[in-house]
Amino acid sequence: MELVHKIEEVRSIVRSWKKEGLSVGLVPTMGYLHEGHQSLIKKAVEENDRVVVSIFVNPMQFGENEDLETYPRDLNKDSKLCEETGADLIFNPEAEEMYEKGFCSYVDMNGLTTELCGKSRPIHFRGVMTVVTKLFNIVTPNKAYFGMKDAQQLCVIKRMVKDLNMDIDIIGCPIIREKDGLAKSSRNTYLSEEERKAALILYKTISLGKELLISGERDVSILLDKMKENISKEQLVKIDYVEAVDLETVEKIDKIQGKVLVAMAVYIGKTRLIDNFTFEC
Amino acid sequence: MELVHKIEEVRSIVRSWKKEGLSVGLVPTMGYLHEGHQSLIKKAVEENDRVVVSIFVNPMQFGENEDLETYPRDLNKDSKLCEETGADLIFNPEAEEMYEKGFCSYVDMNGLTTELCGKSRPIHFRGVMTVVTKLFNIVTPNKAYFGMKDAQQLCVIKRMVKDLNMDIDIIGCPIIREKDGLAKSSRNTYLSEEERKAALILYKTISLGKELLISGERDVSILLDKMKENISKEQLVKIDYVEAVDLETVEKIDKIQGKVLVAMAVYIGKTRLIDNFTFEC
Repeated sequence: MELVHKIEEVRSIVRSWKKEGLSVGLVPTMGYLHEGHQSLIKKAVEENDRVVVSIFVNPMQFGENEDLETYPRDLNKDSKLCEETGADLIFNPEAEEMYEKGFCSYVDMNGLTTELCGKSRPIHFRGVMTVVTKLFNIVTPNKAYFGMKDAQQLCVIKRMVKDLNMDIDIIGCPIIREKDGLAKSSRNTYLSEEERKAALILYKTISLGKELLISGERDVSILLDKMKENISKEQLVKIDYVEAVDLETVEKIDKIQGKVLVAMAVYIGKTRLIDNFTFEC
Repeated sequence: MELVHKIEEVRSIVRSWKKEGLSVGLVPTMGYLHEGHQSLIKKAVEENDRVVVSIFVNPMQFGENEDLETYPRDLNKDSKLCEETGADLIFNPEAEEMYEKGFCSYVDMNGLTTELCGKSRPIHFRGVMTVVTKLFNIVTPNKAYFGMKDAQQLCVIKRMVKDLNMDIDIIGCPIIREKDGLAKSSRNTYLSEEERKAALILYKTISLGKELLISGERDVSILLDKMKENISKEQLVKIDYVEAVDLETVEKIDKIQGKVLVAMAVYIGKTRLIDNFTFEC
């Protein structure tokens, strides 16, 4: 496995692969890799001849009061995990390599980003779309892999790829959870012992929501009220949002119908965590 | 030469070219081709194994009160010109092919678009950047060709390609003029006989501006005042802007220094025409 920091190095390596007719999978990450990322890399290794993992804490997708500075980093551990899982190349650029002097272009969308995380993180998806576009243009993968924990991100990327005619298959992979159900996240490391316990309320509430839908509940306001009520049992947890949206348009819905995404974001102390599930009927 | 209307047809043809190791040049146009476009196609034919000309009057780059509906079209004449000039493929999609139901993504930038045409056409460059990104992703050219008459557009595209790491060489080609100096433009067909005569003021003013700079004028306000004064001699002509900007950043300048773009837009009746020159010192 190789580790490179420069765009031109990636281009040159990928170019030699393509000359041999090899397919390329990309797993874009912000590093501090856990079993969630690992499941993406595994899938990519299964489905492609070569796999690139990008590790880049992208300043452009962080708001002013967000955790850009404190976001956890551990390149040595990440490299080991990538190598063990069968990745061929890590791309780990500096911010200056990705955003040169005078940089002013961006990719954004008018839909899909107004609800859920788009509300509390207004510039977030512009940053995500822009950096993912850049990574796609640098790595030119056949397939790219994203986790379903960031459900809205996955919807946004799929829409962007379709709208802008990027010739790349976007593969969404299931949420990976801790034994007790907490969704794996690099931000879980922020939690104190007490907060870690309180964080279980997310999974419990996801499970409650699923049960309600499985047992036939179709009224969204009843569903969300019951989920919110459940979360508020946990004193350390503050709700950012609990919403049900159409899985394709990410627009709010009144009734459970078709493919639905039920998603939530909560603050536990200063840590913001998200979780979700999808349901079809 | 082939003429196709569907994205998948272009992809399949280009894929077969790439398999043979052939290089591909793209000339994006809105059709109604004249010698200006033809010079781009010629250059592309010289520099690439295969040349694609896209002909698409892009709704997204027209403002509400602009000339989308009346923009001149003549696919037969265009096809003939492309074939004679050595193009291999015309891509002529319908708007529905390019902008499917639910389309909501776009490419834009924070710089370079506030001056010149960006002022009077606020959504124009977003539309240009978005459609050009789409065409780049569909055609995957090695090189793409743009005329220097749309000087700001060329600056914007170059910046976008650099910022978003598109692996494409952007080639700017000189303005082609009528015998009397009027810059070739599909919109020249809008002009009445009287307006056509009045339109000469653009070239005369470009020539005046050049002379002033060559003879040593370095004060931008003096330069622009003299150019505006010259235009106002022509009663049929209304100035939209006459400006001098830095050729790379497209920001206003006070003093002529380095690489400079002097550009203008005027209305002659309802027809909006642009012209420009660059100067380096």
